[in-house]
Amino acid sequence: MVPKQCETMNGYTVNPRDVYGTLDYNNIAKEFGVQSITPYTLKTLSKFTGEPHLFLRRNLVSFHRNLDLILSDYKARKGFFLVTGRGPSNHMHLGHLIPFIMSKWLQDKFNVNLYIQLSDDEKFLNTTKSIEEIRNYSKNNMADIAALDFDKDKTFIFSDTDYIKNLYPLSLKISKKIDMYKSRKSFGLDSCKNPATNFYPILQMTTPVIENCRSLNVVGLDQDPYYKVQNEIADSLGHKKVATILNKFLPSLSGTSGKMNASTPEGTIYLSDTKDQITKTVKKYLPNKIKCHKNDFRDPFNNMAFLMLYYILEENDNEIKTIQDQYVRNEINDSYINQLFLEKITKFLETHQSNKERMSEFVDSYTNSGNLAMKMRSKIHM
Amino acid sequence: MVPKQCETMNGYTVNPRDVYGTLDYNNIAKEFGVQSITPYTLKTLSKFTGEPHLFLRRNLVSFHRNLDLILSDYKARKGFFLVTGRGPSNHMHLGHLIPFIMSKWLQDKFNVNLYIQLSDDEKFLNTTKSIEEIRNYSKNNMADIAALDFDKDKTFIFSDTDYIKNLYPLSLKISKKIDMYKSRKSFGLDSCKNPATNFYPILQMTTPVIENCRSLNVVGLDQDPYYKVQNEIADSLGHKKVATILNKFLPSLSGTSGKMNASTPEGTIYLSDTKDQITKTVKKYLPNKIKCHKNDFRDPFNNMAFLMLYYILEENDNEIKTIQDQYVRNEINDSYINQLFLEKITKFLETHQSNKERMSEFVDSYTNSGNLAMKMRSKIHM
Repeated sequence: MVPKQCETMNGYTVNPRDVYGTLDYNNIAKEFGVQSITPYTLKTLSKFTGEPHLFLRRNLVSFHRNLDLILSDYKARKGFFLVTGRGPSNHMHLGHLIPFIMSKWLQDKFNVNLYIQLSDDEKFLNTTKSIEEIRNYSKNNMADIAALDFDKDKTFIFSDTDYIKNLYPLSLKISKKIDMYKSRKSFGLDSCKNPATNFYPILQMTTPVIENCRSLNVVGLDQDPYYKVQNEIADSLGHKKVATILNKFLPSLSGTSGKMNASTPEGTIYLSDTKDQITKTVKKYLPNKIKCHKNDFRDPFNNMAFLMLYYILEENDNEIKTIQDQYVRNEINDSYINQLFLEKITKFLETHQSNKERMSEFVDSYTNSGNLAMKMRSKIHM
Repeated sequence: MVPKQCETMNGYTVNPRDVYGTLDYNNIAKEFGVQSITPYTLKTLSKFTGEPHLFLRRNLVSFHRNLDLILSDYKARKGFFLVTGRGPSNHMHLGHLIPFIMSKWLQDKFNVNLYIQLSDDEKFLNTTKSIEEIRNYSKNNMADIAALDFDKDKTFIFSDTDYIKNLYPLSLKISKKIDMYKSRKSFGLDSCKNPATNFYPILQMTTPVIENCRSLNVVGLDQDPYYKVQNEIADSLGHKKVATILNKFLPSLSGTSGKMNASTPEGTIYLSDTKDQITKTVKKYLPNKIKCHKNDFRDPFNNMAFLMLYYILEENDNEIKTIQDQYVRNEINDSYINQLFLEKITKFLETHQSNKERMSEFVDSYTNSGNLAMKMRSKIHM
């Protein structure tokens, strides 16, 4: 859904359908009832994983729901499984990779099944694109996802229109417990008149309960309301309460508010961008003051190039600390930091694009021929 | 849905979800905006079919929407196709057969494709039965339907949970045009809080447009609102307006109001009833005054045994006229007419049950292996 231009009383709106405005993460977390990922959480997690992933160390993946239950289930050998997903309405951009990179790390560390759900129904319903266009994006997005090289026998990628027969009976059971009027606001559907748009959220609430063990849903903070509502009805269905691990949104290069958006290309870094395209985007959207004034107070977290380095591109904690300090002390100028960003992002995307090409032959493992995919294709969830 | 005990201002409620009260058919037809099947309609129809079917001659199938368009399409060799269906929440009773018998006759006369949709999702959502129970009823109901011996290469029987993957993309397109708030009242969903219950009507509105030619939907009058709403959006989707041919409801033996109901067994004749069971039902629910009083005014259409003979069991027009006249003149008593009914219904059900057994091996032709079924199984409707 293209963000509306109006803003709410808080100055922002965050729900599964819309993210816009100046986001106050702590306030959103409080509203949603999710927990912050604290140093203590990370310490507990690291007992199982070793050093926490960059996204966790740098506070990009910074909220959760029931992560403690996941870890105690894992410790008690009850197991868990991962769920993530994507609404395939466009080509993927840098921000879209966050939950997939996080999921890849979690799968590697815990050796668990991962389900990747593409809500192509949602995107057909909420855009003016044809089903055929959306399906082409699904196909292309799957190749981007496959580039991350998940476990081919423990990962199942599917789209809603493709897998609905298998999900439908269980989704009907869940739907019977949902009070549409109560949940519409949290799902961003207050004014929605379309019956299918009121129904597809149930499909997203079905995947987290297709295995008997607990699911950890690796998603953007905006998606949490589905799981909140799901947990309110879990007991009545004999389902385990689900867990979430939630990322903040990567802003676009053009500003810190809202999130990078594939349908509003200003300042968006697409995964398919060439070096030339990135250079143009950088030139167009990043400030480029050459002179620094010693007494300027500069917050690196207001500098988009720094933010990209911090959150994604500079994995070395010492390096990023050095850059941050130099920036604060006005020892490096915008031009320097833009150049650093340009080099790193170019390399990052070249690697991604080469992986995408190399790995595209494995898409079928995830969708059909891998062990988990084969098992899921033959299973009707009840 | 079990009928509610309250009644509306009109003394009745008729919508796809509920039928109860004392039905004023002409008023309902006016409200829905459907046409009566007049002697003129029958004369036009009979040019194509020869003598109209019993149900048409006796006014049991007595309303329509766009039947004239079907006939002119047929005349212009544009063709048409038939759609009917059933909500498989229980064993089938005598009243449930009406649209199937009508469809069989129409298929025989026009040699066209017939789609039979079992809304098992609806029945799971609207009853307390499990999905497994509903699926067992679907299976059993399919055998009752197969007993009518449709064209095995031109008939496709499917259930919603089984065929949803094929219907879903087209149903999403239809859903985008539906104003849920406007249609909820006509669908009987005013107070429905369940997202899937707001969605399944769209699946019933999808089958009537899966072929390029026009569909004739052979259903009970209560189902017409789906097609009314469908025709309001047809132009915007480039779809042909659909047609309906609508039957009144067979009342239960216990009274003339409402309709025979499988979930309230009083006075219901199940297709699986044995002679003993029918005898008991007749004894319990039909009046049995032995003496007639010459001056009593007796309306045969208030006598349930006569009604069953008239609508279904006595095909000979002269015979039924004779019985009717004798009844009005008090020349035959209840006992006589009950006995006649008992003999005819026993024979009818024995034939049905033997056909059901004999034909059950052909269910697979309708669901999977017949020409139309095979074609439909491999087709995703867009």
